[in-house]
Amino acid sequence: MSNPSLLILAGDGIGPEVMSQVRRIIDWYGENRSLAFDVSEDLVGGAAYDVHGVPLTDETMEKAQSVDAVLLGAVGGPKYDDLDFSVKPERGLLRLRKEMDLFSNLRPAQCFDALADFSSLKRDVVAGLDIVIVRELTSGIYFGEPRGIIQEGNERVGINTQRYTESEIERVARSAFELARRRGNKVCSMEKANVMESGILWREVVQKVHDEDYADVELSHMYADAGAMQLCRWPKQFDVIVTDNLFGDLLSDAAAMLTGSLGMLPSASLGAPMANGRPKALYEPVHGSAPDIAGQGKANPIACILSFAMALRYSFDQGDEASRLENAVEAVLADGARTADLLGEEGVTPVTTAEMGDRILAAL
Amino acid sequence: MSNPSLLILAGDGIGPEVMSQVRRIIDWYGENRSLAFDVSEDLVGGAAYDVHGVPLTDETMEKAQSVDAVLLGAVGGPKYDDLDFSVKPERGLLRLRKEMDLFSNLRPAQCFDALADFSSLKRDVVAGLDIVIVRELTSGIYFGEPRGIIQEGNERVGINTQRYTESEIERVARSAFELARRRGNKVCSMEKANVMESGILWREVVQKVHDEDYADVELSHMYADAGAMQLCRWPKQFDVIVTDNLFGDLLSDAAAMLTGSLGMLPSASLGAPMANGRPKALYEPVHGSAPDIAGQGKANPIACILSFAMALRYSFDQGDEASRLENAVEAVLADGARTADLLGEEGVTPVTTAEMGDRILAAL
Ligand SMILES: CC(C)[C@H](C(=O)O)[C@@H](O)C(=O)O
Ligand SMILES: CC(C)[C@H](C(=O)O)[C@@H](O)C(=O)O
Repeated sequence: MSNPSLLILAGDGIGPEVMSQVRRIIDWYGENRSLAFDVSEDLVGGAAYDVHGVPLTDETMEKAQSVDAVLLGAVGGPKYDDLDFSVKPERGLLRLRKEMDLFSNLRPAQCFDALADFSSLKRDVVAGLDIVIVRELTSGIYFGEPRGIIQEGNERVGINTQRYTESEIERVARSAFELARRRGNKVCSMEKANVMESGILWREVVQKVHDEDYADVELSHMYADAGAMQLCRWPKQFDVIVTDNLFGDLLSDAAAMLTGSLGMLPSASLGAPMANGRPKALYEPVHGSAPDIAGQGKANPIACILSFAMALRYSFDQGDEASRLENAVEAVLADGARTADLLGEEGVTPVTTAEMGDRILAAL
Repeated sequence: MSNPSLLILAGDGIGPEVMSQVRRIIDWYGENRSLAFDVSEDLVGGAAYDVHGVPLTDETMEKAQSVDAVLLGAVGGPKYDDLDFSVKPERGLLRLRKEMDLFSNLRPAQCFDALADFSSLKRDVVAGLDIVIVRELTSGIYFGEPRGIIQEGNERVGINTQRYTESEIERVARSAFELARRRGNKVCSMEKANVMESGILWREVVQKVHDEDYADVELSHMYADAGAMQLCRWPKQFDVIVTDNLFGDLLSDAAAMLTGSLGMLPSASLGAPMANGRPKALYEPVHGSAPDIAGQGKANPIACILSFAMALRYSFDQGDEASRLENAVEAVLADGARTADLLGEEGVTPVTTAEMGDRILAAL
């Protein structure tokens, strides 16, 4: 049987740096745990635009469709700010999400105990926090038509369309309920059903899926603005939050920041099962490309490394090996190693991106 | 000359309770500061629906159009959850905003020193915080057409449309720049120009208005997800934030919660100047109708009282009288009086909604 295949798209900014540490971890698994992967690398985002004039070529898209999992670093940067909308770095990522049909985006917001003091929130509000935001990722206002900037009379109008079909809502709701069953068994669905019809349909479908197939899971509904408030007030009230593409973008970023562990947070974007039973999948850190610190050895590789741990768990059914990697990360942090984003406390040891990789390998 | 006119729409839940304290304050100004108002009262939201079958009658709408300022309590409640979308309590509020063309919604997120410990954020992150979110209020996805739930093939689709014209963006941008000039002279504009064309137009128009007429104001742009993060991380970096209707809804609620002073925060919704030079205006607390505590004397009337202070300042050019009221509120808090939402600290005095009114009147 051939090895499972991984496509690495390191992207822009700190993407390549953090990904090179992930490469070392992947190699370690091949050498020490007989978990060898066939790894290929390619370009996405500004890096692809610089070479090919597009943020994702058709060839790369095809590769992404054919591998068992994609690992992505980050895309974007000020260098590309003035590019036409259609070739912006972000379009590469959006094309991957859309064409691979990765409808369920799992974004854990977890507070690492060693880092709880990094949160702007009080320790007791965040210590031990462990929630997941399930964001719908292939529809909604990011993709709906009509869209564009059109001339109307003597002025221009910017237009985007939020569109959700029942089946789009249903499948992401199912994935949230399934996830909740493996966790705290509680789902909170967020929309603006008080002002948006798409929110009304969202609420109705989530409730129906619940009542028909997941009545054992505790379900609540919250308006997204109240949800933003409650995340800031007492995030531990949640277990799994399910929401649409746009709300999920803001809410998951806010939640991630609240943990104080932004440079630590991975994410998984999952689609339907492929012929081999594995879901289509892309794994990426929650943080962005941080162009201001790129190339200086300051980036924290942990979010990207933990994204690979998620791949082990969700794509390759290697939950134990995923835990092994997560525990190694915890141990290194407990030991005081900190990349530049995590400095500030007493008694810690500043390390570079590569040194953090060294230590995690040693802990493995 | 006749007195300036006020229309009070107390609405649902705790709306009537908090508004009855505002009535006393208004009367005090008539009796003691020769600032008499012609006050009328009417129904909005569920309260209007219960009587008239609609959340705002045409007669009430006409009154709102003819007065100098509207004071609103809050709308909504679980009792109305199953009503048809078109008659939900919120539609009354949205109709007021839209037909009065109240495009600029000023939402201060201010941390009252006496209450800084109520924030889930660390004291140094919020103490002294004083920012304003200027939210576009009459357009965007709340109002764009097409909208609705339609049948497409064998399933339903929920649709809403985000639409912004250049002039809609321009006028709210101007109001943000004007406000910034009277404050810290700094505006941060938030959108998702990386994924939404309406965001591209937003960014472009805000920049143009700045360059042509407000080059003295410091302007920056931020993606709304990053904005949500930054609000949670270090909100003091901002002075004025300008953003669209939907982002403004989430961001201002998150910001309000972060201050720990939610029950304290007023808001102003302003439109174009009327014939008498005053802007069309509606003032309301940021908090909602809190049906769970309605009628128990637990509600904090301060947000609604401070909304009247904003009316004094923005509609009636009585900045000194507004400060008088704000100072009275500060004094009462410094003295230890706390409604039920603010209990928990040592050495404070629990008071009811009406007792809080008593004390503020005494301090005046
Ligand atoms: C880079 C951008 C297109 C993306 C998004 O808005 O979805 C990012 O913010 C994210 O959350 O993954
Ligand atoms: C009540 C509701 C329609 C309203 C909104 O979403 O605008 C409220 O949340 C607000 O922020 O004023």
